[in-house]
Amino acid sequence: MQTEGDKTFLAVLGGDPLYMPAMPTGERVELGDGVRLLAPVIPRSKIVAVGKNYAAHAAEMGGEVPASPLLFFKPNTAVIGPDDPIVLPDFSDEISYEAELAVVIGKVCKEVPEEHAASYVLGYTVANDVTARDAQRTDGQWARAKGFDGSCPLGPWIDTDLDPEDVGVMSRLNGETKQDGRTRDLVFDVPFLVSYISQAMTLLPGDVILTGTPAGVGLMDHGDRVECEVEGLGVLANPVLRRN
Amino acid sequence: MQTEGDKTFLAVLGGDPLYMPAMPTGERVELGDGVRLLAPVIPRSKIVAVGKNYAAHAAEMGGEVPASPLLFFKPNTAVIGPDDPIVLPDFSDEISYEAELAVVIGKVCKEVPEEHAASYVLGYTVANDVTARDAQRTDGQWARAKGFDGSCPLGPWIDTDLDPEDVGVMSRLNGETKQDGRTRDLVFDVPFLVSYISQAMTLLPGDVILTGTPAGVGLMDHGDRVECEVEGLGVLANPVLRRN
Repeated sequence: MQTEGDKTFLAVLGGDPLYMPAMPTGERVELGDGVRLLAPVIPRSKIVAVGKNYAAHAAEMGGEVPASPLLFFKPNTAVIGPDDPIVLPDFSDEISYEAELAVVIGKVCKEVPEEHAASYVLGYTVANDVTARDAQRTDGQWARAKGFDGSCPLGPWIDTDLDPEDVGVMSRLNGETKQDGRTRDLVFDVPFLVSYISQAMTLLPGDVILTGTPAGVGLMDHGDRVECEVEGLGVLANPVLRRN
Repeated sequence: MQTEGDKTFLAVLGGDPLYMPAMPTGERVELGDGVRLLAPVIPRSKIVAVGKNYAAHAAEMGGEVPASPLLFFKPNTAVIGPDDPIVLPDFSDEISYEAELAVVIGKVCKEVPEEHAASYVLGYTVANDVTARDAQRTDGQWARAKGFDGSCPLGPWIDTDLDPEDVGVMSRLNGETKQDGRTRDLVFDVPFLVSYISQAMTLLPGDVILTGTPAGVGLMDHGDRVECEVEGLGVLANPVLRRN
């Protein structure tokens, strides 16, 4: 992604940047109405997400910050891309947005010390950890509440240069700001999370870590438009639909 | 798999039986010391597992049977095959075996009614839903406790003819029987689970459902050998190792 004045260009790459160095073809495409972005990655293995990783969000959910990262999985069938509709599932009447910084893993990663974690990261993107609050309360485990089809919008692209230490994480519903946090308030930061998760399980290239959401979550309904943003990274926007 | 007297033969297939009809090449291999079986499937997407799905096991865990299936995920990086070692993770001192009937999905499956569920099943295999009890108690969500590397032995093969309604589900530790249940005691049976899960999320060919474990779970330690068996399906055996 390159900007010139008010225009944004996408640089077209050859090969698979997950498995070889990025190889620009020289071709550039202007980002505009004629260009449709897809989810920048569909994990071959897993999305590992972190709950209650901002103190103010843990408080608004009626809980405290956990002593160690609260990990859960979202399946790759939950991933949708920019502008794809979030289709509200029939089993829930309470679907919430959760804007998050997402980490894309670049190399096979197992038992990595915190100080080397950054070298296993390909880059960053924006995630919406869409959650069915009613099912989350009743189910105990969150597989259905946070794993239904469409519950993991990712995009708009993977930024390989972002410094994740102190960037804004925001969401807007129909243009109104709902969440406005900063990653410096993460209870467990990116290097700690990569290291901690890799102690238990191997992270593969293309696996994604969702780092948790700041305070300000709320419900979405049919006809809404939700935007999640990470400062310097871009905006992930999705319309919200109910079929029935 | 074919038996003649006390010999067992594997029929070699061509192509990918997940995406086309099984195509026997005519070649047969005798199962013996020279043959090493691998995990019969590595899901491209997910393993969906069901907690507390036998009343006697829910009781031994100090809980009741849930009103709806208690779903959680195991990642494909947790899968190992027959005879692969279960390496006990450093973060836990309490690792348990859980023998289970595993369902292998054969077709893309979304919002399938219970009465059509069977046609989406490719076959069945045996699973060990290996669990770190201490992390399960402390973590809240079970991603680490049930998702670490090696926590999902699968095998010895996929049986496409099994009727799952009333078969024995057993485990043995160092030859001693520990679990001895029957699938007729499943709280939520296979057709219900396939239908219920598919209401929330798309199941892909090769996805696996673990149907829950009967009573009798217990801990394993370095040097143990654990065997899980489903009646008529075969034995999934794994040695247990601790590295340090």
